[in-house]
Amino acid sequence: MSRWGAGRGASAPEGSDASVLAVVVADGEPASEDAGVARRADLLVAADGGARWLAAQGLRPNLVVGDLDSLDRREIERLQESGARVVPQPAEKDASDTELAVEAAITAGADRIVLVGAFGGSRVDHELANLMLLVEPGFSQVDLRLQRSSTLVRGISGNRSLVIEAEVGETVTLLPLGSDAIGVSTRGLRYALDQETLLMGRSRGLSNVVIGQPASVSIRAGSLLVIEIGKSMEGES
Amino acid sequence: MSRWGAGRGASAPEGSDASVLAVVVADGEPASEDAGVARRADLLVAADGGARWLAAQGLRPNLVVGDLDSLDRREIERLQESGARVVPQPAEKDASDTELAVEAAITAGADRIVLVGAFGGSRVDHELANLMLLVEPGFSQVDLRLQRSSTLVRGISGNRSLVIEAEVGETVTLLPLGSDAIGVSTRGLRYALDQETLLMGRSRGLSNVVIGQPASVSIRAGSLLVIEIGKSMEGES
Repeated sequence: MSRWGAGRGASAPEGSDASVLAVVVADGEPASEDAGVARRADLLVAADGGARWLAAQGLRPNLVVGDLDSLDRREIERLQESGARVVPQPAEKDASDTELAVEAAITAGADRIVLVGAFGGSRVDHELANLMLLVEPGFSQVDLRLQRSSTLVRGISGNRSLVIEAEVGETVTLLPLGSDAIGVSTRGLRYALDQETLLMGRSRGLSNVVIGQPASVSIRAGSLLVIEIGKSMEGES
Repeated sequence: MSRWGAGRGASAPEGSDASVLAVVVADGEPASEDAGVARRADLLVAADGGARWLAAQGLRPNLVVGDLDSLDRREIERLQESGARVVPQPAEKDASDTELAVEAAITAGADRIVLVGAFGGSRVDHELANLMLLVEPGFSQVDLRLQRSSTLVRGISGNRSLVIEAEVGETVTLLPLGSDAIGVSTRGLRYALDQETLLMGRSRGLSNVVIGQPASVSIRAGSLLVIEIGKSMEGES
């Protein structure tokens, strides 16, 4: 599975040198392989305790955003000494540290954002809140994706299409989130859809398979999560 | 955190002897503590490979539902010899094994269903599809909950309320799923809501805290996931 972020991917406009890749590290449990994309970031943003995982990888964030309840004072001082800008947030806020960190990355000029540490941990509520950022209209102007090891999650809403990056034989799941997904069409997938409706709450779009490239999915209205699962996750279904 | 299923809980109608508790075991990664509720089930349903986890706990399902791609022939024969009814499903179906297993439990007369092995595993697409069953109108006639160790997830839709089972000091997250949640009111929670709207995709309802009992949440329209996180998960935020 060719991972976006491994260079200037298909998502970057042709001939554009202005693309800024931000990697946002949430305070979940990133996979050790996720350090790779963090190393390639133009801008590295830690959501609160995500800074600790970065330190363990020998990486330092450009920016630390959050209520800082997961970091002690020594850790915060060390981050500041290393040149990181620390942006404290009130503890009683209406947005998660991760949401604020994604907003900070956009404000800083990122147009591609990979969020790691966002799922796969033990807090299913944080995980769900993070997945929902993918269908949040406020973030639709950037290419936002959640990554953990060889699993990649993106969202599409409205009248858009997405090039699937998974390779032939790999799994692609299409799940409506936020509403039914209307007018869903696919290309290059085993179970083809042609202007069909995927109902929210139903699992019809689970475990499709790439059979030809380029594979893609488009949607006319509503919102859809596109989950690509690379070879290394196989056999776990 | 008083776990429903530990006896005739508050959810069972007063004086009713007819309540049937089904435990459905999905093919994810149940926690070892989840064996407790499985032992108390009136009806034990395995979704495909969920039967293997049950066998490891010394339990045998009454019913095995799925395309059986996760079980080999010897395992299936052994299940049948033990008295389990095996209901094979076509591999190319529009519903997940878990969804079909929940449907089978309802058909068999269950009015309370605990689904274990449904989240916390490595397949985020299966996990999401399982969580979405909680706001699926087809299942609204039963008390359906997902459980993993001391995390409990339920859904409410339409004009309903729910008694919160978490104890004082424990965490409750309210997350709209499927649409904005309209007219949300809470009782006994630190960050009180009074006829408010929680926006889909926003994390305002993350990490509320029980401060008084009985705590409850109600909703006028839309759908909401109610995620309760017991003491043993604390310190992981």
